[in-house]
Amino acid sequence: MADTIKVSGSSVTTSVAGAIAGVMRHDHAADVQAIGPKAVNQAAKALAIARVYLQDDGLSICCVPQLVDVDVDGQTRTAVRFSVIELPEGVAP
Amino acid sequence: MADTIKVSGSSVTTSVAGAIAGVMRHDHAADVQAIGPKAVNQAAKALAIARVYLQDDGLSICCVPQLVDVDVDGQTRTAVRFSVIELPEGVAP
Repeated sequence: MADTIKVSGSSVTTSVAGAIAGVMRHDHAADVQAIGPKAVNQAAKALAIARVYLQDDGLSICCVPQLVDVDVDGQTRTAVRFSVIELPEGVAP
Repeated sequence: MADTIKVSGSSVTTSVAGAIAGVMRHDHAADVQAIGPKAVNQAAKALAIARVYLQDDGLSICCVPQLVDVDVDGQTRTAVRFSVIELPEGVAP
């Protein structure tokens, strides 16, 4: 089970990108989760930045987006979860 | 070069998902582009829904997020572009 990196609307994209890159280097898989437009936007930007960080290490990543129901303070909210995986060589676009 | 599907903050996620699924079935690659938090959120949700649509056809997809500068009415804006690719069998998370 990959670590879940939770992103909020006020998360700093480069910091989140660093966290994603760190987990990917260590575990070769990561989950990035966000609720709401601002948070999803920060998550998407962070993933784009992490991709560049990891490219420098020879790692190609891609994200599988999923909608998941999560419990927040007793209320069910729909989160966007990006499961980040490593692409085999030759598959990158 | 894959078709670019442009998503706005008022795009209907299931309609965009249908468009993504259509392009993926036909071309096996698609680009989904959005500017701003609401649009990026709709794009991410649409990709998650398209993933389910295509799963039913035996197609696994993933997205490579990139930040790209685009010209909008003479102004440079940063867009999030998700390049959607087909995953080879056995790579899906």
